[in-house]
Amino acid sequence: MTIKVLGYAAHSPTASLVPYRFERRDPRADDVTIAIIYCGVCHSDLHTTHNDWGNTQYPVVPGHEIIGRVTAVGAKVTRFKVGDTVGVGCLVDSCQDCEPCEHGLEQYCKGAVLTYSAIDPKDGRVTKGGYSQAVVVNEKFVLHIPNGLDLKGAAPLLCAGITTYSPLRHWGVKQGSNVAVTGLGGLGHMGLKLAKAMGAEVTLFTRSPGKEKDALRLGADTVVLSSKPDEMKAVAGTFDLIIDTVPYVHDLNPYIPTLKVDGTLVLVGYLGPLDNALNTAPLVLERKAVAGSLIGGLPETQEMLDFCGEHGITADVEVIRMDAINEAYVRMRKSDVKYRFVIDMASLKD
Amino acid sequence: MTIKVLGYAAHSPTASLVPYRFERRDPRADDVTIAIIYCGVCHSDLHTTHNDWGNTQYPVVPGHEIIGRVTAVGAKVTRFKVGDTVGVGCLVDSCQDCEPCEHGLEQYCKGAVLTYSAIDPKDGRVTKGGYSQAVVVNEKFVLHIPNGLDLKGAAPLLCAGITTYSPLRHWGVKQGSNVAVTGLGGLGHMGLKLAKAMGAEVTLFTRSPGKEKDALRLGADTVVLSSKPDEMKAVAGTFDLIIDTVPYVHDLNPYIPTLKVDGTLVLVGYLGPLDNALNTAPLVLERKAVAGSLIGGLPETQEMLDFCGEHGITADVEVIRMDAINEAYVRMRKSDVKYRFVIDMASLKD
Repeated sequence: MTIKVLGYAAHSPTASLVPYRFERRDPRADDVTIAIIYCGVCHSDLHTTHNDWGNTQYPVVPGHEIIGRVTAVGAKVTRFKVGDTVGVGCLVDSCQDCEPCEHGLEQYCKGAVLTYSAIDPKDGRVTKGGYSQAVVVNEKFVLHIPNGLDLKGAAPLLCAGITTYSPLRHWGVKQGSNVAVTGLGGLGHMGLKLAKAMGAEVTLFTRSPGKEKDALRLGADTVVLSSKPDEMKAVAGTFDLIIDTVPYVHDLNPYIPTLKVDGTLVLVGYLGPLDNALNTAPLVLERKAVAGSLIGGLPETQEMLDFCGEHGITADVEVIRMDAINEAYVRMRKSDVKYRFVIDMASLKD
Repeated sequence: MTIKVLGYAAHSPTASLVPYRFERRDPRADDVTIAIIYCGVCHSDLHTTHNDWGNTQYPVVPGHEIIGRVTAVGAKVTRFKVGDTVGVGCLVDSCQDCEPCEHGLEQYCKGAVLTYSAIDPKDGRVTKGGYSQAVVVNEKFVLHIPNGLDLKGAAPLLCAGITTYSPLRHWGVKQGSNVAVTGLGGLGHMGLKLAKAMGAEVTLFTRSPGKEKDALRLGADTVVLSSKPDEMKAVAGTFDLIIDTVPYVHDLNPYIPTLKVDGTLVLVGYLGPLDNALNTAPLVLERKAVAGSLIGGLPETQEMLDFCGEHGITADVEVIRMDAINEAYVRMRKSDVKYRFVIDMASLKD
């Protein structure tokens, strides 16, 4: 018995997203079937829809910030029952056998299966994401949503939340740490909230004036205009960690001097060659590092959701109807969203 | 009472090193006076002599890999007595009050005083290094040389040794770690020896064939020609840590894929802008890092010397007379040394 669902798909790099009927797989014994309530809209959805990374499988049904309710569980499912409120993020499977998988770092597994536009090696079919009525996922890749969290604001935690939470934890942010976040978008605004909740002193680096009020509301203690050399100089040697969420090519050299000895700048938003030659001198002279980080593994994603539950943290979202997705993509390209679009799946119609 | 000494100095960027008489400071109560037995010849000596970094104070007496014997101690000196065999490395003072100093990371102190060609803030005089008969150093910056270590081979431990030991320790190399060393010079050959003694599986990356026999003797288990893409591909995802000792601009991108998830490439030899745009994608996709590291602090330098004492580790050196220093510089520029020149200070004459 396959599950027939309605979703929204793009059929080519230049096409708009349109209603699309397809089938979910026959649930396996370890599968959870989920009726989708909300799905966040990530920049990756837009990049994949337009084949910006050259590996899109069409028709593509995007969406990897999924919140839903369990409607059925397989015979071997132990962690979920019908009626549970659950989440699904960027991953729906992994090899479960490699070193990263053994350490709960499924995001770094060579066999990790992305939630959409990836080939599922178990059946050879292309995965389809959360811009749809329902999804069928192995229970290992399903997450519990803590009681009391606003569900529409919880959706972006599954990607934007874990992408910033994971490096904050990995690089040991705690009470009294000094953290900067570069860029104030979907990732950046979560970075501010999470770093603040961990007890850090938080700074926002931004190129555009006028973001101060919002940044302070979201958790920043200070806002530094990265375009102003004197403001940058004033924070030299300040930060234990910089979470760089900027999604386009940019020069890292101005940020490195703002790190403390042993500080790290972690890229989470941009994957590609740097434009300006990275100067290694300040790295050597003060044992600093430039690193990257990709979403988070399943155990850490659950930990992040529980942390958000305890601290009442959700994303700032703008809820849209499913048929407004193409307009939302246009606005995202202009960074015209505070700070994440979330699709109300009840609005999904043919 | 000042101490009159003979040394070798360069008087301009283009001048040869020549005999030079100067005075050491009146020993303070916490000073140790040391008769120099051996002094290693580091690439930094050459760079500073020729003012390659633009900050040389002439006349410059280079040398920061000093081995000697204590000839006098001040009234407050507690850790040394006359007759002790001691070492002095790259630093002769620091502020003793900042966060790095509190953590024994004097090399990252903004007030650190280099062993030569630096202004000593306590008396405003320019520091002069180990190409000389004697040196006067605060006891906090003097190191015990373990019994039984060959003294000429111990000299390069004070810079080349600690420069590779510190990142191996900081990034947690232990039994079973997988470490690569890039470049086989003064630093690289120490990297091989130290990583091996820590129990790591050790690989040498080199651009030049013909180094295999020596590399295996020095501690490498494997030699990989970095100029051969198939050899590089064969070690993809292998290393926990790469110690990059290459002292000139080079492209880091070919090395990043050879790191494991969570692996780090640490630069210790090159301070300057990279030539090729660093690709951030592999950093993000596998949580890798590019970092730097500078020599080591005093506690760790002593730890390194003790470790070398236990394991019988010294540098492979070619002992030269003081008056052969200019010829040695010429050979160093051609990498014609296996693997460190050390000056026998008994040969120092007017």
